[in-house]
Amino acid sequence: MIKADTIIALATPSGSGAIAIIRLSGPNAISIASQHFESISGKVLGKQKSHTIHLGYIKDSSAVLDQVLISIFKNPHSYTGEDIIEISCHGSPYIQQQIIQLFLRNGCRTADAGEFTLRAFLNGKMDLSQAEAVADLISSDNAASHQIAVQQMRGGFSNEIKNLRAELLNFASLIELELDFSEEDVEFADRTQFKELLTRIQKVLKSLIDSFAVGNVIKNGIPVAIVGEPNVGKSTLLNAFLNEERALVSDIAGTTRDTIEDEIAIGGIGFRFIDTAGIRETEDVIEGMGIKRTFEKIEQAQVILLLVDGSKLLADDQKLKNIVIDYEKIKNQNPQKPLVLLINKADTLSESDKEFIGQYLNNINYLSAKTGEGVEALKNSLLEFVNTGALRNNETIVTNTRHYNSLLKALEEIEKVQFGMKENLSSDLMAIDVREALYHLGEITGQVTNDELLGNIFANFCIGK
Amino acid sequence: MIKADTIIALATPSGSGAIAIIRLSGPNAISIASQHFESISGKVLGKQKSHTIHLGYIKDSSAVLDQVLISIFKNPHSYTGEDIIEISCHGSPYIQQQIIQLFLRNGCRTADAGEFTLRAFLNGKMDLSQAEAVADLISSDNAASHQIAVQQMRGGFSNEIKNLRAELLNFASLIELELDFSEEDVEFADRTQFKELLTRIQKVLKSLIDSFAVGNVIKNGIPVAIVGEPNVGKSTLLNAFLNEERALVSDIAGTTRDTIEDEIAIGGIGFRFIDTAGIRETEDVIEGMGIKRTFEKIEQAQVILLLVDGSKLLADDQKLKNIVIDYEKIKNQNPQKPLVLLINKADTLSESDKEFIGQYLNNINYLSAKTGEGVEALKNSLLEFVNTGALRNNETIVTNTRHYNSLLKALEEIEKVQFGMKENLSSDLMAIDVREALYHLGEITGQVTNDELLGNIFANFCIGK
Repeated sequence: MIKADTIIALATPSGSGAIAIIRLSGPNAISIASQHFESISGKVLGKQKSHTIHLGYIKDSSAVLDQVLISIFKNPHSYTGEDIIEISCHGSPYIQQQIIQLFLRNGCRTADAGEFTLRAFLNGKMDLSQAEAVADLISSDNAASHQIAVQQMRGGFSNEIKNLRAELLNFASLIELELDFSEEDVEFADRTQFKELLTRIQKVLKSLIDSFAVGNVIKNGIPVAIVGEPNVGKSTLLNAFLNEERALVSDIAGTTRDTIEDEIAIGGIGFRFIDTAGIRETEDVIEGMGIKRTFEKIEQAQVILLLVDGSKLLADDQKLKNIVIDYEKIKNQNPQKPLVLLINKADTLSESDKEFIGQYLNNINYLSAKTGEGVEALKNSLLEFVNTGALRNNETIVTNTRHYNSLLKALEEIEKVQFGMKENLSSDLMAIDVREALYHLGEITGQVTNDELLGNIFANFCIGK
Repeated sequence: MIKADTIIALATPSGSGAIAIIRLSGPNAISIASQHFESISGKVLGKQKSHTIHLGYIKDSSAVLDQVLISIFKNPHSYTGEDIIEISCHGSPYIQQQIIQLFLRNGCRTADAGEFTLRAFLNGKMDLSQAEAVADLISSDNAASHQIAVQQMRGGFSNEIKNLRAELLNFASLIELELDFSEEDVEFADRTQFKELLTRIQKVLKSLIDSFAVGNVIKNGIPVAIVGEPNVGKSTLLNAFLNEERALVSDIAGTTRDTIEDEIAIGGIGFRFIDTAGIRETEDVIEGMGIKRTFEKIEQAQVILLLVDGSKLLADDQKLKNIVIDYEKIKNQNPQKPLVLLINKADTLSESDKEFIGQYLNNINYLSAKTGEGVEALKNSLLEFVNTGALRNNETIVTNTRHYNSLLKALEEIEKVQFGMKENLSSDLMAIDVREALYHLGEITGQVTNDELLGNIFANFCIGK
C-alpha cells in the first residue's frame, strides 16, 4: 500500500488569511520544490539541513508567484516519515491554487483524504489508534474530547494493548510449539502464568469497554432533550449557558446559532440540546404527529429537561395539573433517564406564587434564563449526570466505535480461552482462540490491518492531514 | 509608535483544517513560548538558532494542549524584524483558542489588524507601498491583480520613486544652501541638471498616474453591465465563462454562485458582471423605477452587453424594432463605452432565421451560451476592451488610490517648480514647492508618514497579518 509518489495539499483551512501552508510529502518533495524555488540568500534547497526554514520566491518559469518561507523536514524526521516540504505562502486562495497547480504540473499528485497521516502510519511514525486520534483532535471542540484525543495521540491505551498483546503473543508461540510436540505431551507454556495474564487482559479489556459509554458521550456530546412549548424560554436558556462559556468560543467564527438544536460546552463537556415541542394529548392529526416526534427525540436523549413558563401557571390550575401528567408520562416511558422539571421566568414569580405552584408540583427547579437565577445550579446538575470521574482520574477512555468493537471481540476470545483452560479443552482449540484474540487486539493498534480497514479510517480525514 | 510588547494572533484562516499557525512577535516571543513548550528532544528553545523548527508539546501547567512544531525567527531576520515564534498546531478551532488564550494570560497581547506588517514597516523591513502590497496580494483573485501586487511587494515602483526623491532631495539641499548665501547670488544647484531631473520626474509621475486607470480596473475588476430581460440566458452565459476558467478556481470552496452579480476571471483579468433588467418604455410606475435603476447600473459599467433571446425574435418584428431602439438609446447615453449586441440561443436559429434578423439589426454577435458557440469570441472582445498592454510589458501599474493621490499632488508641485524656473521666480518660492513635492513622494513609500495615515492603512488588514 505504500506509494512512492510525492503528494501535495493545502494543510490550512481554505479561505483567506494572513498565511497558508501547502505541504509536499514524498521522495521527490525536496527536488520538486527546489526546481521552483529561488532562495533570497542564494542557498540550494537540496543541501539544507532538516528542520530549517528558507526565505525565497516560488517561480513559475520567470514569473514570481509569491514570496514564501519553505520549511524542510528530512526523512525519517518528519510527520509522514518521508521528506516533507512546507510552503508558507500569502493566504490568498488564488495564490494557494496557483502554487498547488504549479506543483501538480511538475511531479506532484493531489493527496487523498488523510494520506499524510496514512503514510505516517505505514512508515511506523504512529500506530493506528494514534492516527485516529489526530482526526479526533482536529474535530475536538471541548476540553473533555480534546483531552482524550491528546492522550490517545500520545500513545494512551494503545501502548497498554501493545504490551499485553506482546505477552499474549509470547504464550501463543509456546502453545503452538506444544502442538508441534503434541505426541510428547509437553507443556512449554506455564499454565499458572498464562491464567494470570488472561485475567489481567480480561480486566483491562473490561475496563476499556466500560469506559466507552463515557467516552462516546464525551466525544459526541451528551444529548439533552428540552421538552417545552414555544416561547417558554428555550433559546434564552441556551444563550444563558452560552454567555457563561463565551470565553471558550469568543473569537471563533460562526458561534451565532440559528437553531436551538445545538451543542454547547458546559464545564468542558459537550451537551447537545435537542429542541422538542410539548407532549399534550390532542385530537389534531398534525399536532399528534408532532407529539410522536417529540417522544422519538426524547428516546435519543440521555437527559430530559421539562421546561415550563412559570408566568403562565398562576391563574390556571388545569395547566398545573397537565404538567404533573406530562412529567409522569415522560418518567414512565424513560424510567432510567434523569428528568428535570424547570419552571422558567422565576423572576416574575412572588413567594406566594411559588407556594401556589408548590401545591401541585414536587421537585421543582426554579430558573430565570433571563436573569441567570438557577442557571448555575442547572449546569451543576447536568455535569453530575455525566460520570466524569474516569476523566478526572486520567484513566483511559475509549471513544472510538472501531476500537470498542475490537475490544468486545478480543474479550470474547479471551473468555473462550479462559473457559477452555477451565474445562481442560485441547491446546489446538485454545490456540485458535488465542490467535483470534491477537488478531482483534492487533486491529486496534494497526499491527493487524488491511487496505479496506485503512481506507475506511482515512476516508474520514480531511485532505491535507 | 513602536511598541515594545509581544503580540499574538492566528495567522491562518479561521475554521478547521489539518494545521493552523499561531504567530507571536516581540521582544519576549521566544521566552514566553519557551515557558509553555516542552521540546521532545529536550532542547531549550531560547538557545536554538534562527530559522529552525522544533517538535514538542504546548503545555498549560501539566496539561498537554497539543503536539506542535515551533519555528524560531530571530530579530532582525524575521517578517516583523522582531523575534518571531510560529506555532504550527493541529487545526481545531478549539485548540487554536486554547493556545492563544494560554499566551494571552502569560504576557502576550492580541495583535491589532495588520500589526505584524505595521511592525515590519516601522522596523524598516519594507516600505509603505510594499506593506500595502501585502494586503493586495492576499485579496488578489486573478492573474493580473496578483502580478501587480507581487511586483509592488518586491519594490516595484517605490524603488524608482525613492531614487528620484533622493536626487530631488540633493537638489533641494543645494537650493536651500543658496538661500543661506542669498546675498552673494551664488548657484550651487546646476540649473540644467535640475531641469533635466524635473523633466524625468514629471515623465515618471505622468506615466504612473496614467497607469492608475488600468490598475484600478485590474484591481477591482472591470464592471460589465448585462442588459437583458429574464430568461434570455444571463446565468448560462456566466456559467459558460466560468466553466472555461474552472481550472483557475477548481478547488476553492464557495465557487457556486447564487447571484448573477459576480466576478469572473477571464484571461487572468477580473470582470464584474452586473445584472440589469430590460429598458423598455413603460407606463407602469414600479417597472419604470426598474428601468431607472437599469440605467444607473449601466452608468457604473465600463462595458455593456445587450443580451437578447434569439429564439423569441422570429415571429415578432416589433420585438426586433424595439431592440434597435434599445441599442440606440443605450449608445446615445453612453457614447464612450463599448456596447455589444448579443443574440443568444443561436443554436436554435437556422440560416434563414439569421437572415431575417439581419434585416433589422447590424453588428450582431451570435452566441449560444448553452453550446459554447461564440463564447470564445466574446471573451476575446472583452479582453480587447482592457488595455493590458502595460501589464504585458511589465510596466509599472499603480492600483492604490492613496498612491494615485500622492502622485497627483507631487506632479502638481513639480510642475509649479518647472513653471517657477521658466519664469525665473525667486529660489525661496521654488524651495517651498520642492519641499512639498518631496513630502508627497515620501508619502508613497512611507519616508514621510504620520500615525493617522498608518492607522488608516493597517486598519484594512486582517488580524494576523
